[in-house]
Amino acid sequence: MSIGEHHRALLDRATRVIPGGMYGHMSVQRMMPEGYPQFFTHAHGNRLTDVDGNTYIDYMCAFGPMILGYGHPRVAAAAAAQREQIDTATGPAPVMVELAERFVGQISHADWALFGKNGNDATTACLMMARARTSNTKVLLAKGAYHGSQPWATPIRGGVTASDRADFVYYEYNDIVSLEKAAAEAGDDLAGIVVSAFKHDAFVDQAMPDPAFARRARELCDAADAVLILDEVRAGFRLSLDASWSTQVGVQPDLSAWGKCIANGEPISAVLGNDRVREAASEIYVTGSFWYQAAPMAAALATLDELVALDAPRTMEVLGQTLRDGLCEQAERHGHAIRQTGPVQMPLIQFEDDPKLAKGFAFCSELIKRGIYFHAWHNMFLSTAHTMADIEQTLEATDLAFRELAVS
Amino acid sequence: MSIGEHHRALLDRATRVIPGGMYGHMSVQRMMPEGYPQFFTHAHGNRLTDVDGNTYIDYMCAFGPMILGYGHPRVAAAAAAQREQIDTATGPAPVMVELAERFVGQISHADWALFGKNGNDATTACLMMARARTSNTKVLLAKGAYHGSQPWATPIRGGVTASDRADFVYYEYNDIVSLEKAAAEAGDDLAGIVVSAFKHDAFVDQAMPDPAFARRARELCDAADAVLILDEVRAGFRLSLDASWSTQVGVQPDLSAWGKCIANGEPISAVLGNDRVREAASEIYVTGSFWYQAAPMAAALATLDELVALDAPRTMEVLGQTLRDGLCEQAERHGHAIRQTGPVQMPLIQFEDDPKLAKGFAFCSELIKRGIYFHAWHNMFLSTAHTMADIEQTLEATDLAFRELAVS
Repeated sequence: MSIGEHHRALLDRATRVIPGGMYGHMSVQRMMPEGYPQFFTHAHGNRLTDVDGNTYIDYMCAFGPMILGYGHPRVAAAAAAQREQIDTATGPAPVMVELAERFVGQISHADWALFGKNGNDATTACLMMARARTSNTKVLLAKGAYHGSQPWATPIRGGVTASDRADFVYYEYNDIVSLEKAAAEAGDDLAGIVVSAFKHDAFVDQAMPDPAFARRARELCDAADAVLILDEVRAGFRLSLDASWSTQVGVQPDLSAWGKCIANGEPISAVLGNDRVREAASEIYVTGSFWYQAAPMAAALATLDELVALDAPRTMEVLGQTLRDGLCEQAERHGHAIRQTGPVQMPLIQFEDDPKLAKGFAFCSELIKRGIYFHAWHNMFLSTAHTMADIEQTLEATDLAFRELAVS
Repeated sequence: MSIGEHHRALLDRATRVIPGGMYGHMSVQRMMPEGYPQFFTHAHGNRLTDVDGNTYIDYMCAFGPMILGYGHPRVAAAAAAQREQIDTATGPAPVMVELAERFVGQISHADWALFGKNGNDATTACLMMARARTSNTKVLLAKGAYHGSQPWATPIRGGVTASDRADFVYYEYNDIVSLEKAAAEAGDDLAGIVVSAFKHDAFVDQAMPDPAFARRARELCDAADAVLILDEVRAGFRLSLDASWSTQVGVQPDLSAWGKCIANGEPISAVLGNDRVREAASEIYVTGSFWYQAAPMAAALATLDELVALDAPRTMEVLGQTLRDGLCEQAERHGHAIRQTGPVQMPLIQFEDDPKLAKGFAFCSELIKRGIYFHAWHNMFLSTAHTMADIEQTLEATDLAFRELAVS
């Protein structure tokens, strides 16, 4: 497989009318190894087809949103049925109340729900709620953590001002001393602490939350009457059917931010909160033209049903463990030192001694040629639409890719 | 018509699981007169049906997004066909390039396009682009103008910090002296000036842009090598098939922000820009999980086709002028002093000597009972799905409402 003429023609056109040819996390030219396609014409189950007709097993799942498979029949039918009646309109539909009730029933820390579009709508609303709750300004963020691309959070500083970052203090994820130091720096002005479900920063090893760190974050919030905010946007429902900290480290956040997969790709995000923050949540003014759209809410209800019915986190864990074990055995056999970090449902595979990603990129380039869409420096995503047969097919390709790498 | 038992039951449930029962611009309890429904089950053409089965002619059009009628067959079919192939995925579809080309072809100032979800994604990206372009920080905003609900823009201060607003200087819309003063205050640090298509602030008279004011904004940007940003999110395609300032006051912006109606309710927003800002646009990092979704892009292409085919701004102008003339005659006949301001396609009707909106709310309450959904303090929206028969039916209701008001 290779980038063919349809791709080249489309890339030429894109370069004329889209800044840089493409932007954000979907810019292949800036982000990905040679040979990666930029444009796709079809997505079904776990398979992607590019504009030259090449098909791939997709391990990015739209960077998370696809969790049940592209075009999942039940989710698509729920969205379509809702769309027939009402979608974006002058007021919300009853499905909004049903979905809020559903989240409150399923997520143990949640007493209420508020919906937006972007994951960043949710994380930004959480900041505002924490500040409204406490009348304080300072929020603690982990260095290098991604919480969206608004000026307060975007990882690249173009167009960002000093004021955009003035109300934040930074700590190291899983480092209690640095967290305490940041809290001390915020002092009487601490509004909240934002924590990611686990450390899933790009380019570096992933790490699960240390329970002692998680408990200390909770204690610091309690001591200051501040708000503990869990960013579940990327990890949501791949580790747990509850908020991941609730099950994994036994710590309840006050607020959690959700997005990406909660409607299997239909655009919706959510803030879930407890009663400590309910009044503050009703005092801030956050909204958007499409936030009350009914079809993604109907899709979310169907997605939640399916995730529970399939025990999705466990299903993906079994697939992910098989992939990880296979890669581990192959790397060793071919003489490659690799690190696999983070939860198996969201794999990250890095080569040792590969600071410029030469090996990682070469490995991925070998795989994309063989119809496997891997990522070299961003965590990948499994879905319930991946099968053991897909994992086996993938491992056949990785075996060949490791061998090519050894030879070259 | 009245709020019935289905509504009361749903409002009770909503109060338990949604902050304040509802939030943002769709919170009826906080925003609207007595008798307004919160939840709707159906939307077709220009008609909304609430959970108790009452049907309304909708003059809010989802606060703008609906411009061709709810469930427009051609737009819905385009979105559905795209969804069958690919929607949210690991990369964009070719339709993204087609849509960018289409905007560049239609909007005279535009050399490129970038897409997001919320209108606020577009306005925020414009700030970042202006700052990246100039390496300056200060942006001028009109006092009271709405550009979204992010902390830098939300009209209610809950959860907003001083730093969120530190990089802005405020001017009065259409007031050249105040604009010059704000630019002087920004001095060497001027990054850009944001202007709304027209003054459409809530609660106050609307105003079309004064051409001299518009030209001065352009001159000030040129003199400082700063960026002129037109917020077209609310007004887009109701006044013009081009950027509204291009046709109405002969001034070309560098950037324009679009949202709401560009895909007739499917969630998509856009930044359009000229070559002065192209490089800056490619240097900032803005993105979102759903920004590359293909179905809303296919819907946008179909929407643009229809808007052009119908000469939508002119169609709505004829309807809006008939409504305005009728209301003017009726108010005079019933002895009510009213003001109708702004473009007829986006009507705002206010009563004189009505500081607490007692008359405006009473008028709207009379109308909602009669199946007409009006707004008392936010501009309304016409669509191409409204007909002369709808306007006539509406004027019959307003005649009765004015009479009731005179009697009481």
